[in-house]
Amino acid sequence: MYYVGIDVGGTGLKAGVVNEQGKIIAKASCPTGVERGPEPVIHDMAMLAKQAIAQSGVPMEEVAAIGIGIPGIMDPETGIVPFCTNLFWHNVPLVEWMHRDIDKPIFVGNDATVAGLAESVAGVSAGAKNSIFITLGTGVGGGIVLDGKPFSGVHGVASEIGHMIVVVDGEMCTCGNPGCWERYASATAIIRMGKQAAEKNPQGALARAVNGNLEEITAKHVMDLAKAGDPDCLEIFHQYVKYLCVGIVNLINLWDPEIVVLGGGVSYTGEFLLDAVRKKLPEMVFYKAMPFARIELATLGNDAGIIGAAMLGR
Amino acid sequence: MYYVGIDVGGTGLKAGVVNEQGKIIAKASCPTGVERGPEPVIHDMAMLAKQAIAQSGVPMEEVAAIGIGIPGIMDPETGIVPFCTNLFWHNVPLVEWMHRDIDKPIFVGNDATVAGLAESVAGVSAGAKNSIFITLGTGVGGGIVLDGKPFSGVHGVASEIGHMIVVVDGEMCTCGNPGCWERYASATAIIRMGKQAAEKNPQGALARAVNGNLEEITAKHVMDLAKAGDPDCLEIFHQYVKYLCVGIVNLINLWDPEIVVLGGGVSYTGEFLLDAVRKKLPEMVFYKAMPFARIELATLGNDAGIIGAAMLGR
Repeated sequence: MYYVGIDVGGTGLKAGVVNEQGKIIAKASCPTGVERGPEPVIHDMAMLAKQAIAQSGVPMEEVAAIGIGIPGIMDPETGIVPFCTNLFWHNVPLVEWMHRDIDKPIFVGNDATVAGLAESVAGVSAGAKNSIFITLGTGVGGGIVLDGKPFSGVHGVASEIGHMIVVVDGEMCTCGNPGCWERYASATAIIRMGKQAAEKNPQGALARAVNGNLEEITAKHVMDLAKAGDPDCLEIFHQYVKYLCVGIVNLINLWDPEIVVLGGGVSYTGEFLLDAVRKKLPEMVFYKAMPFARIELATLGNDAGIIGAAMLGR
Repeated sequence: MYYVGIDVGGTGLKAGVVNEQGKIIAKASCPTGVERGPEPVIHDMAMLAKQAIAQSGVPMEEVAAIGIGIPGIMDPETGIVPFCTNLFWHNVPLVEWMHRDIDKPIFVGNDATVAGLAESVAGVSAGAKNSIFITLGTGVGGGIVLDGKPFSGVHGVASEIGHMIVVVDGEMCTCGNPGCWERYASATAIIRMGKQAAEKNPQGALARAVNGNLEEITAKHVMDLAKAGDPDCLEIFHQYVKYLCVGIVNLINLWDPEIVVLGGGVSYTGEFLLDAVRKKLPEMVFYKAMPFARIELATLGNDAGIIGAAMLGR
C-alpha cells in the first residue's frame, strides 16, 4: 500500500505519495495562503494530495490513508484542531473538511512529532525502539517515537520539549512561563546572544559580518564565525551547547531513548555542533557508568514532513 | 496466580504475597543489615519470600514470579545491579544469587517505578492508561507507567525525574549537576529552606518548635507551621509549591499523562499541598485550553513497595 503525507507550513503546503519503506514516489506543492482562512487551505490540501497521487501513477485504491503534519495539535477524539498559531486556525474541523474532498482515513500529527517519525522510519533513527527528535529552529519542538509509534500522550499534547522549564525565573517565553528551554536552545536564542555580543563589540567580526545592521544577525552568522574561531561567537557557541545539553540530559534522564536526533535549522551547523554535544553529555547524564542514547544529526531535511505525515497512516 | 513482592530498603526488607488484583495476602519483614554485604541480604530476601508464601497458605506452584523493588537500577540484559548507593552494592548479580534459593522468574525494578506501578494497579491511578508517580522524599523519584507497564527506557535508566535540571547553575546536586529538581522539590529542600529561615529569625515559630536546635528541623515542622499560618513557613511553602509545579508542568508538557500522583513523605502534607498545586498548575501548562493530567495524592503508603514489586511479575 501507499500513503499520502501532507506537510502544512505557514508559507507552503507540500504533499507526497510515500511507499511502505518511507520513500517519496511523487510530490506536489503550493503556497499556503493562510490569509484566506482555513477552508480554502484545507481544500487545497486535498487537491494537492490528489495531484501527487495522479503524478505517482498509484491507483487510488492502493492509497491506504492520508497523514497530515500541522504546526499545532489536533484533538484525537473530535478531529478538531483547537488552535494552530502560525496558521491562525481556531477550532477547525480538519478531518471533516478533508473528508469533503477525499474519502480516505485521515491521521493528523504535530509537525515535530511527524519529523521524528520520518527519521525513525526512513532516516537516522530507523530501527530504533525509542527515539527523540529535536527541532532546533525558531522554537524548539520534539518528536518522541516509542516502539515505532509517535507518542502524543493522553490528551494529544505531549512532546512539548521546548516548553520544559530549565531556568526558573529565566527569560520570558511566548507561552507565559519564564525559563523554557526554547528560550535558550533555539535559533532565536543564538540570535539574541549574537545581538548582545555585537552590541558590546561593534568592531567585532559578527557586527562586521552584517555591516553593523544587528537586526540582520542570523544563527548561521554566529555558528559560522564560531567555526572560524571568532572569540565572541565561540563563547556564544559554548553557552548554547551548555543549554542544549541541559535539555538533552533531562530528556535522557526521563526517557532513556536509544537515540536523540538533532534536526531543524541549527542542526545544519553539522559535526561542529554534534561533536561538542557528544563531548559534553557524558559528564552530565545521571548514570555515568551505563550506556545512554546515541546523539545524531537528522538526515531527511525538508522531506521529513511529507514522509512522517504519510507514516502516521501506516 | 499469586506474586511475591520484595521491597528492599536501606534499613528494612519486606516481602509479601499479592494476588492478581494487587491485594497483599500475607507479609513478612526483617532488618536489611546492609553492613553484611549483598550476599546474606539477598539470601534473607529469598528466605523472607518463602516465609511470606508459607504464611499465606498459597501453594508454591501458584506463585508465578518474584518481583523486587530496589533503591537503584538493574541492567535488564544481565540481571546485575551496577550500583545501589543506599545498599552499598556494586555490580551485584541479584538475579543469579536469588536463584540459588528460589526457583521462580525474577523481575527487578527501581523503588519509585515500583511504587508508581502499585498505585496504577491497586491505588489512586488504577485504570489510568498513562500515569506518573512522584516520590517527594529525601530525594525525588519517579515511576512512569505507560499502558499499564512500568516505563524504564532502553537501557533501564529512565524515569530519573528528580535529576531533571530546572535551575541552570543552581544548587549543586549529589549527581554532579547543579540545579536538579530534587534540590528544590524534596523534603531535603524544605529542610534547607527551613534552616535558612530559622537562622534569619531565631525567635520565629520554626526555631522555637525545635528549641533552637536547627539541625532537628524536619519537612513536617515546616509544613505544619505553614498550615498553622506562620509567615516564614508559608513563604517556604509557596516557594516549594512553585518549584514542585515547575517540575510537574515539565512532566505534563513532555508526557501528557492521565494522572500525576504525589507520594513520599512530603505528600503526607495532604490536601493543603494538593490544593496549592492544583491551583497553580492551570496557569503554567502549555496548552491552557486543553484538559491535562489530574493531580492526586498516593493512597497505598508503605505497602506500595511490596505491591508494585509483586506486580512487576504479573
